[in-house]
Amino acid sequence: MKAQIIVIGDELLSGRISDANTAPLARWLESTGFHLSRVILTRDKEDELLPLLKSAWEDSDLVITTGGLGPTKDDITKQVFDLFINGPGGTLSESVEARELVTSHYQRINKVWSPTTNHYHMLPKNLGVFSNPKGLAPGLIWESSNKVLLATPGVPRELMAMIEGPMPEILARNFKLPRITDQNLIFKTHSIPEEIIFFELMPNLWNELEEVGKVSSLPQVMGVDIVVTFKGTKQDLIREEKKWEELLIKSPLAPHLWSVGPALIEEAVVKRAQEKGLTFGFAESCTGGLVGHRITNVMGSSSVFKGSLVTYANEAKENILKVSSDSLKEFGAVSEQVAQQMAKGAREALSVDLAVSLTGIAGPGGGSEEKPVGTICIGQASSKESRSKRYQMYGSRDHLKRRFSEIALFGLLKLIDTF
Amino acid sequence: MKAQIIVIGDELLSGRISDANTAPLARWLESTGFHLSRVILTRDKEDELLPLLKSAWEDSDLVITTGGLGPTKDDITKQVFDLFINGPGGTLSESVEARELVTSHYQRINKVWSPTTNHYHMLPKNLGVFSNPKGLAPGLIWESSNKVLLATPGVPRELMAMIEGPMPEILARNFKLPRITDQNLIFKTHSIPEEIIFFELMPNLWNELEEVGKVSSLPQVMGVDIVVTFKGTKQDLIREEKKWEELLIKSPLAPHLWSVGPALIEEAVVKRAQEKGLTFGFAESCTGGLVGHRITNVMGSSSVFKGSLVTYANEAKENILKVSSDSLKEFGAVSEQVAQQMAKGAREALSVDLAVSLTGIAGPGGGSEEKPVGTICIGQASSKESRSKRYQMYGSRDHLKRRFSEIALFGLLKLIDTF
Repeated sequence: MKAQIIVIGDELLSGRISDANTAPLARWLESTGFHLSRVILTRDKEDELLPLLKSAWEDSDLVITTGGLGPTKDDITKQVFDLFINGPGGTLSESVEARELVTSHYQRINKVWSPTTNHYHMLPKNLGVFSNPKGLAPGLIWESSNKVLLATPGVPRELMAMIEGPMPEILARNFKLPRITDQNLIFKTHSIPEEIIFFELMPNLWNELEEVGKVSSLPQVMGVDIVVTFKGTKQDLIREEKKWEELLIKSPLAPHLWSVGPALIEEAVVKRAQEKGLTFGFAESCTGGLVGHRITNVMGSSSVFKGSLVTYANEAKENILKVSSDSLKEFGAVSEQVAQQMAKGAREALSVDLAVSLTGIAGPGGGSEEKPVGTICIGQASSKESRSKRYQMYGSRDHLKRRFSEIALFGLLKLIDTF
Repeated sequence: MKAQIIVIGDELLSGRISDANTAPLARWLESTGFHLSRVILTRDKEDELLPLLKSAWEDSDLVITTGGLGPTKDDITKQVFDLFINGPGGTLSESVEARELVTSHYQRINKVWSPTTNHYHMLPKNLGVFSNPKGLAPGLIWESSNKVLLATPGVPRELMAMIEGPMPEILARNFKLPRITDQNLIFKTHSIPEEIIFFELMPNLWNELEEVGKVSSLPQVMGVDIVVTFKGTKQDLIREEKKWEELLIKSPLAPHLWSVGPALIEEAVVKRAQEKGLTFGFAESCTGGLVGHRITNVMGSSSVFKGSLVTYANEAKENILKVSSDSLKEFGAVSEQVAQQMAKGAREALSVDLAVSLTGIAGPGGGSEEKPVGTICIGQASSKESRSKRYQMYGSRDHLKRRFSEIALFGLLKLIDTF
């Protein structure tokens, strides 16, 4: 079963905003067994959209548009759907179903909708509506000759709510969805290059995994993701994950394996800390709070994360983290000595079991020959010891902040595992 | 002059990664005067890509592909270009130009390239190469019948470097680029609804702006962006910006206008604080460090930003920010009383002129009837006074963290303006 997505909006083709809808829609379609063959970004223009709609409909079983559903003049999806389904000269007429949906959408935000508010209740002939659980404009639907055409809103959170809400039911009603789809068995490792994994540590692993499916090895910043893609059900994936987790936990790969399944490093850190009953916190400088931000994106992190002390200025490092002014003068703020003191200071100030610190140069200015842009010192403090290490990374300011936070989080994961 | 972009990669259509290349490419194309009519995301498959390439070439003066330039089997761009340009049965042959480029690309990362490393030096007939300043695989170029076809890498930072580097020169060589293009005159306002701006405060503004170009009013989280699009040169835009800035600064809109031009709120905060010679810092809780992270994304923020104390646990609020345990017990961590004490505590601990605090509930858990998810209390402390205010927002955890940080930054901007 083939699907196409048409993303509508001038603002995407002028680069004013990035398309945030394709990736989640694509993931959802893949999980249902649909093959997404193409995505097209187009402008809010009738003569652009109409031929795209026609050719997408011809090639696919399911066509989803996003955007252009609002009440203003540039929202042309409804008119183009009318042209496509009914041909030129059609008129809109009131739909009881649409009127009920819109009334309830407005009630949700404690407002009263009336026919003077907008034209959400007026529909082209043969077109239906479906609920928008987080927005006001209903989705549009046309079901014809075993195919489905859906119009969804461009606002990402509204689309997400539709993917969780009414859309799975629409698919289930119209298509015989396969129970067997592409499944990805994922192993996430750290601190080990792929050639060591496959040539030294586990020389039979690749062949054994190939019996399950197609194997890929994807090097990431801090380690390698091994992905095995196979045809199966969700249950098959759960069974394979369990089987391989039990096997690998007893293998030489165990100390490097941090997730079986598609976890983020911040999720793994929170989970392991919860399992071991350890609290933690950070002392940040150049990352400005990014490490704490990432950890607090994880629901339930408050049970283990106590805080992050962002000391951008040296004075703050001295006052809050008790870094010695002599060390700052002698070694500089970006040094292993200061990183170590920052970690110790944060562990004390936050009363946590484990603290990790970061001090580095995210650039583009501030580098020197001895300490170029991309230099990062990571400190760690626990009841056992405190230590620090210097690394050199490359990239833009954004990129470096992200990489620095990655190193700190992987370091924390390893530290947790020593307890 | 019309352009199309073709984004190549299975990983985009399975939703494993988001397309990060279209937005910057689109912005760049718009700035050169090209009209980007369509963007297509397609899989790494010859029979998908070839017809797309043909139809894009027919409709456009410039076609840019991104992705599929690497050395592995799924990187099919070069073969498909060969089929498209030379038809079936073509062979690759060594290009001196390509060989030199690749050798220099490898030298940049202190590695030696040889013909056994990969086939980057082998090109289809009639195809040329251009430099990849931040990567290894050269770009591919075909210039024919006053049209240009470019293949660029899928890695965003490599593509960005090409946009800054060789690509403007390629366009200038092949096309008569217009000096006159679409220019956006942007006014960013806060704390005022659009109907008050246009109906009460400045009833003639819309009409006056319409003499410059097409006016749009775009409501954002904390205010309204007014955008006027007109045909002109970069110099025309600078002149209009200057003229309107001078006019509006004396208008009733002045207290609500925070930027003429496309600034981010964190950039405006840093700039104003620098102008006034004021230092600032934050006390964060539910945002986990996001506010500090945003500020430190701004280059040069270290001259005014001293730090952000993320006190996620109550104990940390007491120890580090000196919030009274009685207040925490009586009013709860999410309260105007605690927010105010957090701001005062941060101002002292960080020795800054101004401190802003945030304590709220980002959800999805942790809400109550009295304090539902989305409740946020913002505190402010300066030499003049300390105060706090409670707001109610809506959305997912991600969304709320972002909105909370937005309120805090706008509050800080207003606070700076009182000095």
